[in-house]
Amino acid sequence: MERAWRGFAIIYASKNNIAERLCEEMKKREIPCSLFSYKEANFENIWKCYDGIIFTMALSGAVRTVCKYAQSKDKDPAVIAIDDEGKFVIPILGAHWGANEYAEEIARLLGSTPVITTASELSNITSVEEFARLINCKILNVENVVKVTSALLRGEEVCVKGLKALPKVKGKYKIGDDCNYFVIIGENQGNNDNAVYLKPLKLSIGIGSKIETDERTIEEAILFALNKINADISQVEVISSVREKVRKVAEKLGVKFRLLSLDEVNSFEDECLSPQSEKLKELGIRNVAEACALISAGKNAKLILRKIPYKGEVTVSIASIGD
Amino acid sequence: MERAWRGFAIIYASKNNIAERLCEEMKKREIPCSLFSYKEANFENIWKCYDGIIFTMALSGAVRTVCKYAQSKDKDPAVIAIDDEGKFVIPILGAHWGANEYAEEIARLLGSTPVITTASELSNITSVEEFARLINCKILNVENVVKVTSALLRGEEVCVKGLKALPKVKGKYKIGDDCNYFVIIGENQGNNDNAVYLKPLKLSIGIGSKIETDERTIEEAILFALNKINADISQVEVISSVREKVRKVAEKLGVKFRLLSLDEVNSFEDECLSPQSEKLKELGIRNVAEACALISAGKNAKLILRKIPYKGEVTVSIASIGD
Repeated sequence: MERAWRGFAIIYASKNNIAERLCEEMKKREIPCSLFSYKEANFENIWKCYDGIIFTMALSGAVRTVCKYAQSKDKDPAVIAIDDEGKFVIPILGAHWGANEYAEEIARLLGSTPVITTASELSNITSVEEFARLINCKILNVENVVKVTSALLRGEEVCVKGLKALPKVKGKYKIGDDCNYFVIIGENQGNNDNAVYLKPLKLSIGIGSKIETDERTIEEAILFALNKINADISQVEVISSVREKVRKVAEKLGVKFRLLSLDEVNSFEDECLSPQSEKLKELGIRNVAEACALISAGKNAKLILRKIPYKGEVTVSIASIGD
Repeated sequence: MERAWRGFAIIYASKNNIAERLCEEMKKREIPCSLFSYKEANFENIWKCYDGIIFTMALSGAVRTVCKYAQSKDKDPAVIAIDDEGKFVIPILGAHWGANEYAEEIARLLGSTPVITTASELSNITSVEEFARLINCKILNVENVVKVTSALLRGEEVCVKGLKALPKVKGKYKIGDDCNYFVIIGENQGNNDNAVYLKPLKLSIGIGSKIETDERTIEEAILFALNKINADISQVEVISSVREKVRKVAEKLGVKFRLLSLDEVNSFEDECLSPQSEKLKELGIRNVAEACALISAGKNAKLILRKIPYKGEVTVSIASIGD
């Protein structure tokens, strides 16, 4: 996978073969996904909690559900429909917020046809909104977004400041400062009228691990997860775990550590926690990584990377810290 | 065209090349279509007045509009999206009410891919609702529809009574009465628990013609239009025109005639009248056929065949007469 994928809700209606196959393929690539039956799904939560929603059912059914929850371009998740036979992968909402790219990737996984319907000139650039999302930033001055995106559409260069390297993007973004238009990453908004100012989100990392897992593996897992979402350790404010051992890893990385008790984790409730697999439920094991990330992120936290496994020993999850 | 097509609203956003090409192709086949610019369209009316709506724009834009107006499966028109480049023809709503078949036909016209996402077992039969629509009937006992459609899905025969010949349908419909399940066409509902009872709509025909057009051509035009919607002259209650000459045709066909004055036609207002072409507007010519059909159909009338031309001399329109 070329993109940072932060977790999908996959909904199945009458048949679940495509949904299960897709979720398995995603898990092989450490892309978090949760399976929901259409009848049992709480769509209000799913809409709020997932970056991407995939309906494996007829388009009309997916659209009627979308109609109940869709709000606006800047609030809705990317939504995709796949027919029961897996012939077509159809971005419904959020084409320029990732849905087109997701659909193309999924179509490759399943051997299907991606049904891309947006104007090709728009598909040839990464919008500034999507750029911000890719590098885990908040847009400080939304009013300049159209101006800079238009420059990209005209084929003009847009200079990116405050970033060492570009994520995988389309359009003439470049690191530098000899452009007429800018994307500037920093803590505060400046006064350049031709710039969009982005503020990096502060991150909270939650770790689950086996008792015997060594510090080296935990450190690797953290860097692996950050890399997956194009984030840097400097954005991380806190690392939490029920394992005291993780403290040393956090110290080595120069990040604050918070030890949580199993009680705190087990009593933590959040509507956005990924559903537990039946196997984990039986074992009485909670979703430790996500709970740790969310507890330490505090109020208005948002899961931006659902738990992913690392070498079968560690699970990592990342939440953004609310303002 | 294999189907009875009753008129499409084609909506275009930024580009209108596909919309115009499609409307031209339809007109060649006497399929009524009206072009609307997205910005100027009155979607509330369009939703109510057309059997089929085609958006030539990105799917997400079409879906967000659909979300504003969609009500329920039995009330919404068939809705289709076609991308600006005409690569995909995508049924959004009403797959089993004709949208799939429409999409397949349109894809053939444009050389595009039809994106059919409904389960194939459902695509292999014509639902009872669609059957009723095809033969211009009202369903008297909706509660038995699922039972009869399920029989078709299981591959069982369904006997059709009260019809001389079947329209083009999929599934084991047959004329006869040695079945366990029935579709029965007549004025009243009977008491067979395994039957869906259909009542033929009563029709009002409106005629526009040149002064010099002969009666023979007018008669042909009427039969041509009825044939297009699989209807029989026996369903027609009234034929109306501003031309006295049409009276003789009506008499020959055994149907009541109503002569309307040009004043009545010109002062008639109805939100469902097809928009006038610029050319007709300049000439000060009103939409005579549709207005005549609607005026004589009275309250709760519905245009079921928008005006179609015949031999460049006659226009015919058909409305259903409300209860």
